[in-house]
Amino acid sequence: MKVAIIGGSGYGGVELARLLHNHPYVELTQIISHSQAGTVFSEVYPQMTQILDEPMVDFNIDQLAADVDVVFLATPSDVSHRIVPEILKEKIKCIDLSGDFRLKDPALYQSWYGFENTAKDYLNQVVYGLSEVYQAKIEGAELIANPGCFPTAGLLALIPLVQAQVISTQSIIIDGKTGVSGAGRGLSLNVHFAEMNENAKAYQLGVHKHIPELEQELSEKSNDSIKLNFTPHIVPMTRGIMMTSYTDLVSEQSADDILDIYRSYYHNQPFIRIRTNDQIPSTKEVYGSNYCDIGFHIDRRTNKLIVVSVIDNLVKGASGQAIQNLNIMAGLDQKTGLNQLPIYP
Amino acid sequence: MKVAIIGGSGYGGVELARLLHNHPYVELTQIISHSQAGTVFSEVYPQMTQILDEPMVDFNIDQLAADVDVVFLATPSDVSHRIVPEILKEKIKCIDLSGDFRLKDPALYQSWYGFENTAKDYLNQVVYGLSEVYQAKIEGAELIANPGCFPTAGLLALIPLVQAQVISTQSIIIDGKTGVSGAGRGLSLNVHFAEMNENAKAYQLGVHKHIPELEQELSEKSNDSIKLNFTPHIVPMTRGIMMTSYTDLVSEQSADDILDIYRSYYHNQPFIRIRTNDQIPSTKEVYGSNYCDIGFHIDRRTNKLIVVSVIDNLVKGASGQAIQNLNIMAGLDQKTGLNQLPIYP
Amino acid sequence: MKVAIIGGSGYGGVELARLLHNHPYVELTQIISHSQAGTVFSEVYPQMTQILDEPMVDFNIDQLAADVDVVFLATPSDVSHRIVPEILKEKIKCIDLSGDFRLKDPALYQSWYGFENTAKDYLNQVVYGLSEVYQAKIEGAELIANPGCFPTAGLLALIPLVQAQVISTQSIIIDGKTGVSGAGRGLSLNVHFAEMNENAKAYQLGVHKHIPELEQELSEKSNDSIKLNFTPHIVPMTRGIMMTSYTDLVSEQSADDILDIYRSYYHNQPFIRIRTNDQIPSTKEVYGSNYCDIGFHIDRRTNKLIVVSVIDNLVKGASGQAIQNLNIMAGLDQKTGLNQLPIYP
Amino acid sequence: MKVAIIGGSGYGGVELARLLHNHPYVELTQIISHSQAGTVFSEVYPQMTQILDEPMVDFNIDQLAADVDVVFLATPSDVSHRIVPEILKEKIKCIDLSGDFRLKDPALYQSWYGFENTAKDYLNQVVYGLSEVYQAKIEGAELIANPGCFPTAGLLALIPLVQAQVISTQSIIIDGKTGVSGAGRGLSLNVHFAEMNENAKAYQLGVHKHIPELEQELSEKSNDSIKLNFTPHIVPMTRGIMMTSYTDLVSEQSADDILDIYRSYYHNQPFIRIRTNDQIPSTKEVYGSNYCDIGFHIDRRTNKLIVVSVIDNLVKGASGQAIQNLNIMAGLDQKTGLNQLPIYP
Repeated sequence: MKVAIIGGSGYGGVELARLLHNHPYVELTQIISHSQAGTVFSEVYPQMTQILDEPMVDFNIDQLAADVDVVFLATPSDVSHRIVPEILKEKIKCIDLSGDFRLKDPALYQSWYGFENTAKDYLNQVVYGLSEVYQAKIEGAELIANPGCFPTAGLLALIPLVQAQVISTQSIIIDGKTGVSGAGRGLSLNVHFAEMNENAKAYQLGVHKHIPELEQELSEKSNDSIKLNFTPHIVPMTRGIMMTSYTDLVSEQSADDILDIYRSYYHNQPFIRIRTNDQIPSTKEVYGSNYCDIGFHIDRRTNKLIVVSVIDNLVKGASGQAIQNLNIMAGLDQKTGLNQLPIYP
Repeated sequence: MKVAIIGGSGYGGVELARLLHNHPYVELTQIISHSQAGTVFSEVYPQMTQILDEPMVDFNIDQLAADVDVVFLATPSDVSHRIVPEILKEKIKCIDLSGDFRLKDPALYQSWYGFENTAKDYLNQVVYGLSEVYQAKIEGAELIANPGCFPTAGLLALIPLVQAQVISTQSIIIDGKTGVSGAGRGLSLNVHFAEMNENAKAYQLGVHKHIPELEQELSEKSNDSIKLNFTPHIVPMTRGIMMTSYTDLVSEQSADDILDIYRSYYHNQPFIRIRTNDQIPSTKEVYGSNYCDIGFHIDRRTNKLIVVSVIDNLVKGASGQAIQNLNIMAGLDQKTGLNQLPIYP
Repeated sequence: MKVAIIGGSGYGGVELARLLHNHPYVELTQIISHSQAGTVFSEVYPQMTQILDEPMVDFNIDQLAADVDVVFLATPSDVSHRIVPEILKEKIKCIDLSGDFRLKDPALYQSWYGFENTAKDYLNQVVYGLSEVYQAKIEGAELIANPGCFPTAGLLALIPLVQAQVISTQSIIIDGKTGVSGAGRGLSLNVHFAEMNENAKAYQLGVHKHIPELEQELSEKSNDSIKLNFTPHIVPMTRGIMMTSYTDLVSEQSADDILDIYRSYYHNQPFIRIRTNDQIPSTKEVYGSNYCDIGFHIDRRTNKLIVVSVIDNLVKGASGQAIQNLNIMAGLDQKTGLNQLPIYP
Repeated sequence: MKVAIIGGSGYGGVELARLLHNHPYVELTQIISHSQAGTVFSEVYPQMTQILDEPMVDFNIDQLAADVDVVFLATPSDVSHRIVPEILKEKIKCIDLSGDFRLKDPALYQSWYGFENTAKDYLNQVVYGLSEVYQAKIEGAELIANPGCFPTAGLLALIPLVQAQVISTQSIIIDGKTGVSGAGRGLSLNVHFAEMNENAKAYQLGVHKHIPELEQELSEKSNDSIKLNFTPHIVPMTRGIMMTSYTDLVSEQSADDILDIYRSYYHNQPFIRIRTNDQIPSTKEVYGSNYCDIGFHIDRRTNKLIVVSVIDNLVKGASGQAIQNLNIMAGLDQKTGLNQLPIYP
């Protein structure tokens, strides 16, 4: 397969480049960056010296049509909805890592994202690329909305539970913790080392874009209209997301019952690891890999089921899952090119 | 005042030594450490070179009686309840930074702490040293149970709300984040830099000792029996605690209403800073200082009030509050010796 | 004394504000920031909430003349040499934390700093504010050039040795390590958390501005023309500088000999701590304080004397030393307002 | 090939396990740990859940003889020299990651390592496994002494220069910086997060074990007896080594001359990346990979050539190079199983 990356100069782009380099069936023919067109990729990212020494190019639809089967869009918000229709017309499949196509209700873009989605006609055909959950749909998709980093970890923890109807859909609270790379490579005081080191911050309380995405998917899977609380926090590490989900059990459940729900839902899924015996995964245990690890605890005193799920935000939370989706679309083993084990320590 | 520190070789002890050094009315006459008796303090803590070059001594009650008016106990769990009675008999006041006297119900020690409290007779007379809340009682106390680090931040955020009866007492969820120094100076894989850097962990789900302490105080202030969820997380920083508290509003409240509750509760309290306009404090904004900063957000979609409170776990969460209590006991201005501003960045 | 800070929105400025707040003889009457004039200081730095809630103001020489005895200039490079003459004319003393007045040879500004010094007439009268070394001159100074962070640590380690003529002046090599706050609050990829965490970088090899400053002062003290190598590195921490100096002994010296040289040079200096017995200080042992700690090792195999000196770059390396100089100028105890002990851990 | 890891519970062992898992021609048949025999590997290292769920076993020479072609010894100091002879007798090849066989002069073990090497007879036949330098010898080796982490980075930077005779052999100074994982998984205050975070330390001045290793190899390549200074520092990161080498040029050399020396020495070596145009590599640019990146600067003012070389201490500095050596011994492409790109950010 010939693929291109649009938005190659950001963290999503360089992580795609890293992972695709070892993918046996993929040729990366173009790295597209409007702001850095003409610049050699390894000058922007010296870790790629002798690996990707070609210049980035500007977006050119004819060149793309000539060169490419699948495009990854690792663009900032409010970009991909403007160019995806044009690309799809050339029979090039699109995997969009931005949020521009994740919400099915067009009205939500204005209120949560602050822009008007100009490709509303495509919102019906786009497939939400949560690989383990929508595998069948992904196989035939032309356009994938790759999930957000927080929603990936949150939904993989909660969808089996809401579908099994063991937790209340009206009282879900999710407390998220992310590393700083989730904010991207753009400059701001929030990512200044001296401001963020030895620091923990809560941010965007009640207004984070991933709230409607979490609600959309959990509502869909529960046949219920779910409103939930999700509060993101940033902690002083580069990679990693942890979602601590607080849920109310609606019936008596043992730890084995919950384990069975997860195991049967994720049967044979290579990237999901369910922890047993109250073992709770930490973010470093998935560092640099495409795993999502899930652990849980039943609190009998309050009848709560607390679930902790962790991913590497740049791999399973972005570029890794995008390649997993590419594999599914192409009929390959999901793990192709994604065999990197977690780096530890 | 002449004071001694028992347990001088741990982080609580050295932080007391740091803060007391600049206290104008305190003379630190003894640093007691059983394991390090005879060792010069600044050899254990070279940052104290030329400041505290005296040797630590072993515990000797006669020496203590001769030398000291107030003792700070910065001992591990299951130590102070064994020696406090002996010290009190010598008319020496005790400020205990460990958890040995925090719970009023003696039965709870076995289930949550794993030891039998041998000083049960003193549980009625001990004053829980949450400075801003129990100021009047602290003034006359002989024995102070200095609050836990998580409870300090959590209770200062929640007590005004439960007392004002604006939140449900039956659905409180607290998600805590702490720096690694909270685990003390003892060695374990959990505090190994290579294991903890670039890592976030949840731990002791449902069994953390600070749960009954939080419940005891909130129950007391609400005249209700409160069971809550508290889940601690450790994140890769040295100092700082953030408590994110999720509560259900039981009546219509504006942000100004909530602000009024806090402001009236903490009127003239120098170490409490209530943030306005949805500004949420980060842990670094109190680094090295005795402040507790509190910010909040009302989520109209779910009718939740989310409160974020931050402290430096070693200052307001331990040694700073202990000195604040000493000041109150001695009739001094609470801020005496605690005028250090947050170190930033 | 009434003082003002020019350049209050940067790290030098806020650290001055932090330290001056507890100075018993100083009133901070103005915080001047051109870019942030009108903004409340604690909105830019929320850790200063309820401490410094006044707005910053723009530079106004008349206002300054009416209000202020001493001005601290915490401005970027190429600013203070333009405004200091105007301020001095108003009989206001100036302590310049930038590099604009550090070099005595006007020709060096163009080659090392890249600007033409427009206040050349003042280069003869400026006093280089290395407090322990130039105490007598500082007492009567109108204009202080506060030393650079690296030079402070390097010179305090090396001046006693070159003056005692025990090391070769022709082969000094200094390897510096600094935390990220040394780069200031300005935004760049170099200070992006995700780029700098888990990273160590060498930078500006052979062209760093602190090279001529180190050479100027060591040449002066040795009566020799010294060329040396200084290579700065940035490591993933916020505060702290370590200078590892490699020198050749020109005569047989014991560890006690070297210790004597340091002790006699720094007799009664409260902020210099010389370590003994091959104990080497680490940066955290001076964190948040005005200390400079110095340790050394004699390598008999190669006849080298290796000296390691550490400071907090924002305190002794900038704002703390500036206040130390203010104290000296005002005839106060050097330690006034600078009694903060190192924060550890 | 069937291989075993002895010392599987340390960082060298788990990194071997991680890398070998994706090696197409290797079967890992045993992970041997005396202290943890019987424990499931993924219980000690949960990141290996569903990947290596087998128990570790105790050392058993018969079992080893039956099962294994090559053994990796990732044991602490003073272990492998006791067991390697026994293993070699079974015609099993040994790659020793500890320092027990690195020095050719048996007398040096007592003075630098503090133990008597009991396998002196093997010191003549052992091959020093610096892959790029000793490739031909490695091909036929039975016993490899895998180089130390600091020496790997230092020697790859300096051997081409001493062999080309462009630098003085009598004045080499190396300033090393390492991440904390280099200290291993054992517990000590030096690796406590709260002690090491926001800290930089110099350690073992003049007595570090890697000094004689550096001197041995540079002496060999220069036909000269080299004494040098090497001072290691630990900085607050998990992985990464940077060696900053200060050398005196003995003849006029341009940057292109130096570049030619490196390029011709490392012609076709896939893991060596020589930077050009004064670009200096940072440690993160090789994170998680087997690369050694080398950059340099000629300082005309002092006629110095300063070389900065970086590696991941656990990959090229230990387990990665061990596998590279395995590949060379087995006649495979050096890169087999080592195709992981640097993880960035």
